[in-house]
Amino acid sequence: MRPRAPASPTDRLVLRRLGIDTYRDFVAYLHRESPVCRAEGFEAQARVEVRYGDRHIIATLHTTSGSVLGVHEAGLSEAAWRELGAVEGGSISVHHAAVLDSLSDLRAKVYGKILAPGQWRGIIEDVAAGHYSDLELAALVTACAGEGINVDETVALTRAMVEVGERLDWGTRPVVDKHSVGGLPGNRTTLLVVPIVAEAGLTIPKTSSRAITSPAGTADTMETLAPVTLSLEQIRRVVERERGCIVWGDNARLSPADDFLIRVEGPLDFDSDGQLAASILSKKIAAGSTHVLIDMPVGPTAKIRSLQGAQHLTQRLRTVGAALGLHVSVDVADGAQPVGRGIGPALEARDVLAVLRGEPGAPPDLRARALRLAGRILEFSPTFAAGTGERAAAEILDSGRAWRRFQAICEAQGGMREPPRAPLHSVVTADAAGVCLEINNRHIAQLAKLAGAPRIPAAGVELHVRLGDAVDKDQPLFTIHAEAPGELAYALRYLDAPRPIVSVGVR
Amino acid sequence: MRPRAPASPTDRLVLRRLGIDTYRDFVAYLHRESPVCRAEGFEAQARVEVRYGDRHIIATLHTTSGSVLGVHEAGLSEAAWRELGAVEGGSISVHHAAVLDSLSDLRAKVYGKILAPGQWRGIIEDVAAGHYSDLELAALVTACAGEGINVDETVALTRAMVEVGERLDWGTRPVVDKHSVGGLPGNRTTLLVVPIVAEAGLTIPKTSSRAITSPAGTADTMETLAPVTLSLEQIRRVVERERGCIVWGDNARLSPADDFLIRVEGPLDFDSDGQLAASILSKKIAAGSTHVLIDMPVGPTAKIRSLQGAQHLTQRLRTVGAALGLHVSVDVADGAQPVGRGIGPALEARDVLAVLRGEPGAPPDLRARALRLAGRILEFSPTFAAGTGERAAAEILDSGRAWRRFQAICEAQGGMREPPRAPLHSVVTADAAGVCLEINNRHIAQLAKLAGAPRIPAAGVELHVRLGDAVDKDQPLFTIHAEAPGELAYALRYLDAPRPIVSVGVR
Repeated sequence: MRPRAPASPTDRLVLRRLGIDTYRDFVAYLHRESPVCRAEGFEAQARVEVRYGDRHIIATLHTTSGSVLGVHEAGLSEAAWRELGAVEGGSISVHHAAVLDSLSDLRAKVYGKILAPGQWRGIIEDVAAGHYSDLELAALVTACAGEGINVDETVALTRAMVEVGERLDWGTRPVVDKHSVGGLPGNRTTLLVVPIVAEAGLTIPKTSSRAITSPAGTADTMETLAPVTLSLEQIRRVVERERGCIVWGDNARLSPADDFLIRVEGPLDFDSDGQLAASILSKKIAAGSTHVLIDMPVGPTAKIRSLQGAQHLTQRLRTVGAALGLHVSVDVADGAQPVGRGIGPALEARDVLAVLRGEPGAPPDLRARALRLAGRILEFSPTFAAGTGERAAAEILDSGRAWRRFQAICEAQGGMREPPRAPLHSVVTADAAGVCLEINNRHIAQLAKLAGAPRIPAAGVELHVRLGDAVDKDQPLFTIHAEAPGELAYALRYLDAPRPIVSVGVR
Repeated sequence: MRPRAPASPTDRLVLRRLGIDTYRDFVAYLHRESPVCRAEGFEAQARVEVRYGDRHIIATLHTTSGSVLGVHEAGLSEAAWRELGAVEGGSISVHHAAVLDSLSDLRAKVYGKILAPGQWRGIIEDVAAGHYSDLELAALVTACAGEGINVDETVALTRAMVEVGERLDWGTRPVVDKHSVGGLPGNRTTLLVVPIVAEAGLTIPKTSSRAITSPAGTADTMETLAPVTLSLEQIRRVVERERGCIVWGDNARLSPADDFLIRVEGPLDFDSDGQLAASILSKKIAAGSTHVLIDMPVGPTAKIRSLQGAQHLTQRLRTVGAALGLHVSVDVADGAQPVGRGIGPALEARDVLAVLRGEPGAPPDLRARALRLAGRILEFSPTFAAGTGERAAAEILDSGRAWRRFQAICEAQGGMREPPRAPLHSVVTADAAGVCLEINNRHIAQLAKLAGAPRIPAAGVELHVRLGDAVDKDQPLFTIHAEAPGELAYALRYLDAPRPIVSVGVR
């Protein structure tokens, strides 16, 4: 016989907005002497369920002493506050979080077991609901790294990621898309490809990410030209009107689990072919695409460093795509140096505008890459015979029709604007004459980030030379753009260490 | 030519104690409009270096808005505050943390590479210095889980863990030790083995852990009887006087990296033979031990579930110990049910006292286990011939010499005290007559934790039956002990779900 549980002590706490930003981590703050802490036996780092009205989240507990919170008050990290739609003075209850069943499957994966589709589904449901702690997300990403998941698991993982989120259906075929695996600064072809392809009559509902570890994501760059934070319904209206869009994907809850995984992938900087494939393809399938072209730059300082690595990832993408009814083509491209001149949201947007407007100084490499990719995408449609896509793309660009379509897309997304300019500049020149031998993608990206990109849209680096260019002594190599003196100083201090950024020498 | 970096903006911030407890996680709080955040381009979750006087730590940044902090103020989590020895109103500087070189080796391990000893040393140095974030620690633990590290790597990892911490040398041989791999509630043989072995003339400097995921660690149980938080110098004095001690290991900075790994191992609940071996053996070697006996309970709901698993771990422990000059013996024991009656620090201490004092109701299983282990340890010394140890141990216990030695050890550690009693009790009885068929170690441990153990030393569960006992209807099966009504209620609610705790039925 079991004694009856006595009535639970009152467990309501009054919300106080502390304004603590933990990025995406859900944290609940309770006074350590709070009746709830005492009754539930809570200690710092406990996983707790926070209920507010009909919403609930699982959060990590940080306890307080002193005067930050009263014993009947509770605080939330800003991410948790937003997720719950909380208001100052509102009332929450806090309980022990139930143990997640999917964690035993995660543990099995960590120990090297192969998981069944249902197990992946369970894990991804909990991830998408925000129920995994950062530690648990880190364990999941680590367990999948390298050769951690096989092709069948990647298919199951991708399908689970699609199924737990929203999904678009355009009622037409083909619905095309592109994606760059990233790692190449300035590679902003999306802003050219989308208006060209849409103008040619194809549907291209492009969702993009913000920068995770890079100085600019496509969404960051586009945001200097037009709003990108659109609801799913707004995206639908833009695409129905203009056949294309360039929006921020996270807001649409297409493959929402991916948005949580990114929270730890950035800081950890791990990758795996399996997880990368699931991440890319789940977003595309959820967006209703039938054909996708993957832009895969390969180079010694790009994300993919060898042709062998590119082939392995290509194989994984094609196999997983095929299993899920998505046609995947891959464009392996030279990733030896940044694309265009600007690195940073506004500087990259200026390169894009120059190409769209056909300005004489427009970066030819950005134009050429965009036309090649757009051409391949056009050939997904029976309207464009093999070998004719790139020329058709060039005609659309050169006629000004792509530029007009781009402006129309910007207007549909909420209105076009001019990218900002940074007030502070610092020019770095060549110490001696020679030939430009190396432009290190990673270091130039880091320099742009130290200057403030992508947080400061106008910040970044402007390159004045390309690989193989002859350079005179004192000729400008690149210019750092910054908004605050401290940020400019920080970028300049990065130049003090002996590391290659733009190297000039004798071949 | 590179432009000179302008003078850095003032980067001093005034410390305000917020009193936020994040367990062991180092967090720095800065106002998002602080000049330092603006100049350095900090965002929430950035890894930052915090300097205070001649001390420094690496912390995770949480930014604040609102009135919690002024723009020229900074806060620290309590763990960070203690680590820096900070005072209210003190002055700190905050900078970007340099990238840790060892993270590229961690990444290689995540991708399945085998690391060289120097790489392990680099990783462990950074871990012991507190430089790894929780995410990075989680990745390290995950990468080592299952078959993640081989024997050579385990040796290198263990050696690195010893080398980065303090190390004791007793100038004598043998120096003996014991360790339980855990998972069996109530298994508090250490408090019996140490006084018996010390009384027999052997040196046994026992450092123990607090509970990580269990309702009581040996240090928690001992703390209800005597102080356990001793400095290395205090430990030395106790052992020189009494030949034995039972202290909390973390305070001594023996294998300090392990103390950081535990921070994530608890929440993640992963284990690997390699990491478990490194964790156990590094503490023993650092404590100056030459011979160690490992108590390895095996049972369906114990930590080690099969004899095969026990053999694999035994092999790893012996091989790694041998490579590092430590003799390792393993005692594989029945782990089918908890040991003794009490589960929870004070309840377990009462079982120990009953055995030491030879009380009639003393749990015979706890006594028998302790004597077997003590006997095997005595035989590490040439003074005790093979097969004579257990009888010698029984004589020391039955003569009352072990009880006197235990009291002397408690006095040397700072004074003996009586374990507390909980004010609230709830008795669970049998619904029908039958035989006790199962006592689930995991569920009974969880129940004791929900009742408040180990945070509330008097809380826990007292078992009234053993496997195979005949049970009448309404006969008491176990009693829950709690301090607060809320905690008792929480434990009782755990009984509502259909899960085995103590099962009575027909065989």
